[in-house]
Amino acid sequence: MALRLLTAGESHGPGLVAVLEGVPHGLPLTAADIDRDLARRQRGYGRGGRMKIEQDRVRIVGGVRHGRTLGSPIALWIPNRDWENWSRAMAPEPPDDAAQAAADGDWRLEPVTRPRPGHADLAGALKYGARDIRDVLERASARETAARVAAGAVARKLLGLFGIRIQSYVLRIGEVAIPSPVLEYGEDGRPPVDPAALEEATEASPVRCPDPVASERMVEAIRTAGQAGDTLGGVFEILVTGVPVGLGSHASGDRRLEGRLAGALMALNAIKGVEVGLGFAAAALPGSRVHDPIGFRPPRREGTEPAPAAPGPAHPAARAAAARAGADGWRGPAAGFFRYRNGAGGIEGGITNGEPLVLRAAMKPIATLRRPLPSADLLTGEPFAAHHERSDICAVPAAAVVGEAIVALELAAAWIEKFGGDSVDDMLRNYIAYCERLAAW
Amino acid sequence: MALRLLTAGESHGPGLVAVLEGVPHGLPLTAADIDRDLARRQRGYGRGGRMKIEQDRVRIVGGVRHGRTLGSPIALWIPNRDWENWSRAMAPEPPDDAAQAAADGDWRLEPVTRPRPGHADLAGALKYGARDIRDVLERASARETAARVAAGAVARKLLGLFGIRIQSYVLRIGEVAIPSPVLEYGEDGRPPVDPAALEEATEASPVRCPDPVASERMVEAIRTAGQAGDTLGGVFEILVTGVPVGLGSHASGDRRLEGRLAGALMALNAIKGVEVGLGFAAAALPGSRVHDPIGFRPPRREGTEPAPAAPGPAHPAARAAAARAGADGWRGPAAGFFRYRNGAGGIEGGITNGEPLVLRAAMKPIATLRRPLPSADLLTGEPFAAHHERSDICAVPAAAVVGEAIVALELAAAWIEKFGGDSVDDMLRNYIAYCERLAAW
Amino acid sequence: MALRLLTAGESHGPGLVAVLEGVPHGLPLTAADIDRDLARRQRGYGRGGRMKIEQDRVRIVGGVRHGRTLGSPIALWIPNRDWENWSRAMAPEPPDDAAQAAADGDWRLEPVTRPRPGHADLAGALKYGARDIRDVLERASARETAARVAAGAVARKLLGLFGIRIQSYVLRIGEVAIPSPVLEYGEDGRPPVDPAALEEATEASPVRCPDPVASERMVEAIRTAGQAGDTLGGVFEILVTGVPVGLGSHASGDRRLEGRLAGALMALNAIKGVEVGLGFAAAALPGSRVHDPIGFRPPRREGTEPAPAAPGPAHPAARAAAARAGADGWRGPAAGFFRYRNGAGGIEGGITNGEPLVLRAAMKPIATLRRPLPSADLLTGEPFAAHHERSDICAVPAAAVVGEAIVALELAAAWIEKFGGDSVDDMLRNYIAYCERLAAW
Amino acid sequence: MALRLLTAGESHGPGLVAVLEGVPHGLPLTAADIDRDLARRQRGYGRGGRMKIEQDRVRIVGGVRHGRTLGSPIALWIPNRDWENWSRAMAPEPPDDAAQAAADGDWRLEPVTRPRPGHADLAGALKYGARDIRDVLERASARETAARVAAGAVARKLLGLFGIRIQSYVLRIGEVAIPSPVLEYGEDGRPPVDPAALEEATEASPVRCPDPVASERMVEAIRTAGQAGDTLGGVFEILVTGVPVGLGSHASGDRRLEGRLAGALMALNAIKGVEVGLGFAAAALPGSRVHDPIGFRPPRREGTEPAPAAPGPAHPAARAAAARAGADGWRGPAAGFFRYRNGAGGIEGGITNGEPLVLRAAMKPIATLRRPLPSADLLTGEPFAAHHERSDICAVPAAAVVGEAIVALELAAAWIEKFGGDSVDDMLRNYIAYCERLAAW
Repeated sequence: MALRLLTAGESHGPGLVAVLEGVPHGLPLTAADIDRDLARRQRGYGRGGRMKIEQDRVRIVGGVRHGRTLGSPIALWIPNRDWENWSRAMAPEPPDDAAQAAADGDWRLEPVTRPRPGHADLAGALKYGARDIRDVLERASARETAARVAAGAVARKLLGLFGIRIQSYVLRIGEVAIPSPVLEYGEDGRPPVDPAALEEATEASPVRCPDPVASERMVEAIRTAGQAGDTLGGVFEILVTGVPVGLGSHASGDRRLEGRLAGALMALNAIKGVEVGLGFAAAALPGSRVHDPIGFRPPRREGTEPAPAAPGPAHPAARAAAARAGADGWRGPAAGFFRYRNGAGGIEGGITNGEPLVLRAAMKPIATLRRPLPSADLLTGEPFAAHHERSDICAVPAAAVVGEAIVALELAAAWIEKFGGDSVDDMLRNYIAYCERLAAW
Repeated sequence: MALRLLTAGESHGPGLVAVLEGVPHGLPLTAADIDRDLARRQRGYGRGGRMKIEQDRVRIVGGVRHGRTLGSPIALWIPNRDWENWSRAMAPEPPDDAAQAAADGDWRLEPVTRPRPGHADLAGALKYGARDIRDVLERASARETAARVAAGAVARKLLGLFGIRIQSYVLRIGEVAIPSPVLEYGEDGRPPVDPAALEEATEASPVRCPDPVASERMVEAIRTAGQAGDTLGGVFEILVTGVPVGLGSHASGDRRLEGRLAGALMALNAIKGVEVGLGFAAAALPGSRVHDPIGFRPPRREGTEPAPAAPGPAHPAARAAAARAGADGWRGPAAGFFRYRNGAGGIEGGITNGEPLVLRAAMKPIATLRRPLPSADLLTGEPFAAHHERSDICAVPAAAVVGEAIVALELAAAWIEKFGGDSVDDMLRNYIAYCERLAAW
Repeated sequence: MALRLLTAGESHGPGLVAVLEGVPHGLPLTAADIDRDLARRQRGYGRGGRMKIEQDRVRIVGGVRHGRTLGSPIALWIPNRDWENWSRAMAPEPPDDAAQAAADGDWRLEPVTRPRPGHADLAGALKYGARDIRDVLERASARETAARVAAGAVARKLLGLFGIRIQSYVLRIGEVAIPSPVLEYGEDGRPPVDPAALEEATEASPVRCPDPVASERMVEAIRTAGQAGDTLGGVFEILVTGVPVGLGSHASGDRRLEGRLAGALMALNAIKGVEVGLGFAAAALPGSRVHDPIGFRPPRREGTEPAPAAPGPAHPAARAAAARAGADGWRGPAAGFFRYRNGAGGIEGGITNGEPLVLRAAMKPIATLRRPLPSADLLTGEPFAAHHERSDICAVPAAAVVGEAIVALELAAAWIEKFGGDSVDDMLRNYIAYCERLAAW
Repeated sequence: MALRLLTAGESHGPGLVAVLEGVPHGLPLTAADIDRDLARRQRGYGRGGRMKIEQDRVRIVGGVRHGRTLGSPIALWIPNRDWENWSRAMAPEPPDDAAQAAADGDWRLEPVTRPRPGHADLAGALKYGARDIRDVLERASARETAARVAAGAVARKLLGLFGIRIQSYVLRIGEVAIPSPVLEYGEDGRPPVDPAALEEATEASPVRCPDPVASERMVEAIRTAGQAGDTLGGVFEILVTGVPVGLGSHASGDRRLEGRLAGALMALNAIKGVEVGLGFAAAALPGSRVHDPIGFRPPRREGTEPAPAAPGPAHPAARAAAARAGADGWRGPAAGFFRYRNGAGGIEGGITNGEPLVLRAAMKPIATLRRPLPSADLLTGEPFAAHHERSDICAVPAAAVVGEAIVALELAAAWIEKFGGDSVDDMLRNYIAYCERLAAW
């Protein structure tokens, strides 16, 4: 079954909903699996006060029983902790006139008519014919991404069974930048980094930058921007290891995996650029330096003890089958073929090639600035200077975590298309059969 | 009706098919409208011999009668002119044994087992279990994009009725690059270029670069790369003027227009990066320099003679209504609101804001190199040096034209969602009503 | 925007969720609009005890503010009132062992292994590899239809603005049956019934049968079946008045409106047959008695006071425009064309023709019987006699109400495709323009 | 990959196109496989002259090489043999004025303004704003179903590999009817008929009725109706044997297989009713006589020689695995569970239960009558009597063949969702693993 996701909920409404349909039966899943990613989304140096208010916790209200998915749609509910302060301003019911009158003085009840450059405010109000920008900004807010992170945690759990590991790290905040650590390989195609070590370094940084020196400079840049009433964007990278050859397809434009991944990432709030592998750098290099030479090492046959393919598929039989097909904890099963570098970012012609997926996204700076930008009133057209008291200064680390979720969802969708199966057990069986086909190639 | 497209056909098969469903009734359309773009796709310095063979011409075989669309699915057929040389190698029917025997010596009938780095060859063969890479490369070839260009020409024709103009130009070939000419505006938000002049300069260049000096240097870079047996990629930009405020939506991730556009562009063969507006540059700048200040000029009211909004909607009533709502040939109708620059590339929060759309895509160099790259045989794993006699050296100008088609298709889909209507006349009526709502804002 | 719906939630879980995406901005909507249909779904002679427990009430948790839709996804939450009794049996979290031990004796915690003929029990357990049928039956239960009714109430509210009225009534319970009251017209094509009177008679019947005599006999049949430990099915009809000509399309199989409506109705639990218009009766008649002769009365022009088109579009301008285009409270706008009977059920060639939609669905008897049916244990294959204590005897009246919701959702989807518009105001404008085009035909 | 189909082409245009995307790699397929069904669609007593003109032959123009599918979209082209007589009336290009003038007297060039009751003529012309009904009738014609039959032949070929057999027969023409031969089983659940014998009897009848006496009476009824200038409809049944338990899903309304099948069948031209299993008869019976008792016979284990499961999966390993899981040529694999009758028509709760699928569809009489029906001119509203010279009298046998194709396409889509796999070999492997899971149940 194709994976389908709908999310709902406003930033200051009662909460957020995600319904994820198409997850197979039998996946181990608890609220803690999801809360972990919700918490990671809320961290990061440079966030404003709201992150502390929220402390998101999911409630699973459908599709899961006794810690296992049922195959029915999974419903997730993330309450907004600030709801009690907004219950009148965001009430679904029409306001009671008396109460409205008494409410004079509560700014939350006044229409918002001052569009902020860089937000959906103006375009959305004109599109929908809304005279109160709040009708738009409540849903356009990045608060919605909490729902996508929750759904993404389910997808990650599924992929994790098969040894797929999705991680993110920050490569740039404003002018402070480091290069991607994963495109150039060591001798004979040796992986350039250990994914676990990279993750550890990332999680230890307040800005998700695995390079400690750059991390400190990024913190400093955020502090300086904040003092100037300004904001900063940046670039994050998503690394996915253990991906088998053969997800996605070349057969039609909208089946190509890079398109699906890039489209989903660009649809994340504030993202203005997406790259796969070398990305824009590939445009400046000659072909001989871009394409990834192909090597071959006979994969291990049955009977051979496979090297520990950490993290590798959780399921022992899947782990062994993947190893026989050439998976090594960095690469996924690919019949023993491998590359000497990864300029393609793990995708060629719309199809995964067994190397890790490498994607980057560029986030623009937060659009709510303390430092004013010229704007014009929605109703009168009168000019005013848009400025705001409270805001995040930089949300790139949070966006990276959301990016992981987005990639997990797209990849799980491609996974389900390829491996079918209504239950995790069927899917494992089909995955093992595929690995064995590759091992016997 | 939602717009749907399927294409079919192999590179050396009898031809290419595109079926485009959801185009309204009454759109003027002839084969010449489509052939124009097919011809533009075949131009460009650095192409190999095949472009001369093909000289694509479309045959409309469904959905059009007497020069107007019927509202039924439009079927387009583009014959492959080289088919007679490939009719045995690519025959749909199983080969006759005797004929097969006689065929010894025809390399077209031998299985391809040597995967080329940078192509779908290896990943596709492993995915599908194909022992002959031809089963994959025939469809993974960029030849398929001719079908998308043909379908895109229909979308362009539809959008053109409403004054939407889609053009592309090349910003980079290898190391030779120019900056985007359209993001920074003149005083008081004056458009930085005249779209018609930009188009003229572009079409005059053998590499679609509107800057004559850079154009010459690009030609030189291609010549040099070709002499070295190498290939080059580059960057193209798509500019869409006349876009009304309000296409796309912030309401769900997969409704956001930038995601749909970026996903479709990344799904074009050889694209490795996509940007909207400032793109990656936005990640390095502070918020105060990124977001686009909002201005307002009262739009012209009925009775006022609108300034000539060239090219503007083809239909006079639509042209007048758009002008009253603030359209000026650069911007589309947006109730008189405008921006002092266009760092957002015309989209905020998933929704068009009335400024032109600005998208860039990075293309990697052609993967078929005369200069060999190490590879391994599909069946034996034996190493070999992949090299090829004939190939394009650079296809960025062609990709830019395909990019126009892709953007046209996505934009037409969003257009149809917003304006509904089963016929072009209904759609015009709905568009005019929207413009009038904006004009009266 | 296309209308999308996902529902989630198990029969004895915490509650049901519906997320409905694509509803335009500005639709008046309150919980009371939805609760009305939820209550109607729970009525009907022959229901078991659970209907009293539930007393469904919706909570709107997204997409609506101050009594109006925002254009963002609408999230609806219907708590299951029996949840506290099932919170351990249906807990999303893995059971605590101690608690589990203490639970001995609670049948709710024991696996269900005895499949009931006529339910998804056996097929679902085998499909998903579930050893506990509860994993399947909880979602396969008709409890889910409460979520579809809630979403359908939103669609009904939207369509109601344009004078579309959706009603249902029961034509058969077991052997007691009446013919459709709406296919044969009076002289000169006069409508055979007044929809309001038909609705009143229907709502007054405990089995939704507008014929009082048949209604009593149906009640009696249910009582008799219940005494025999048996169950009954039946047939309901959906009547939709005020539908404009031109929804749906002939252009592709999956655009044909009858296919979309029939598919959605057949997907309702326990439905085994669907008819449009004459349905199966058409197969036995000659063509001359089946097809609906076409008549024409010049529609009223502007300036003419239109006759009261009760209920008619709620919006005065839409009401007037519809009347000018020939709408009369029975038929929708169709340029003055009408039919002398309605054997087609309002759809020809996939497209509404202006006459009311008439659809019928056949419901099989409730599959949970007090009277035993032979079955075999899921795990051992041992034969047993499936019998059950508590159950509904007949749910046809409830299914009819769900059928209204299903038709409302499909029709709203077709409506949005045709009329586009992001807000109810835009949609009204487009609808009026269409009526005016028809009026001037 | 999800299966997607678009068709295009007008009744008197150059031909019909079908693009079918999502078929796995490696399916044996030739034009003869498709032509067989195209020919079956053209047979049947009661067809007019056109069937002789057409003699459809498909040309495969994409997605197939050397008799095997490539995994890329399959493109099928069916030329209209009458095209040369219509090349001016249906020319895609605008007419040349001189030629137009010379054409005076050719009725094919005159606008059609007289809508035929029972066709899309009037509704379509009003919807699209077409002043010439030909713009609508050309696509609304049942000629389009040839494209669906061609695509369905591909789906049938795929399903045939797994022992799934799809056949149809006519149960009613006008007043002559026979009951379904397949719902009531023999003792101990013995299948009531031999599918091969049923097919043989069907194909021998000029009206696809397997009962020779009824067949003769049907022919007579058609002859009589034709002499009276009238037309006849009827009912056909689709029987699908060898279907494994577990296709479709209960989890969401639009995943339920009966909904997808019924929606697709109702979308076939002229269909007004669809039933699954007992259909409307179930509404009149008590539950104890409707639901299908469940039995169990231990399926054969590995090592046991399975009884010949004719036709059974073509692939020997799949055939053996299916037999071990309980398949017997009538039922598909279902872990040894079976039913004592088949009132459910093989689907419970949206999921196949291992028994054969049984679907019926009611076709209204042909709407083009020699005997006139009152109608009104599209442009003037003037009444006229619609009558026509040439037409089919009865097309139920042809519709039955189209119904097979439609069911094949929906079933193949559900198959691909469940079993995944990019190649037929992968799919076989996954199918066998599923059978083995069921066999070991």
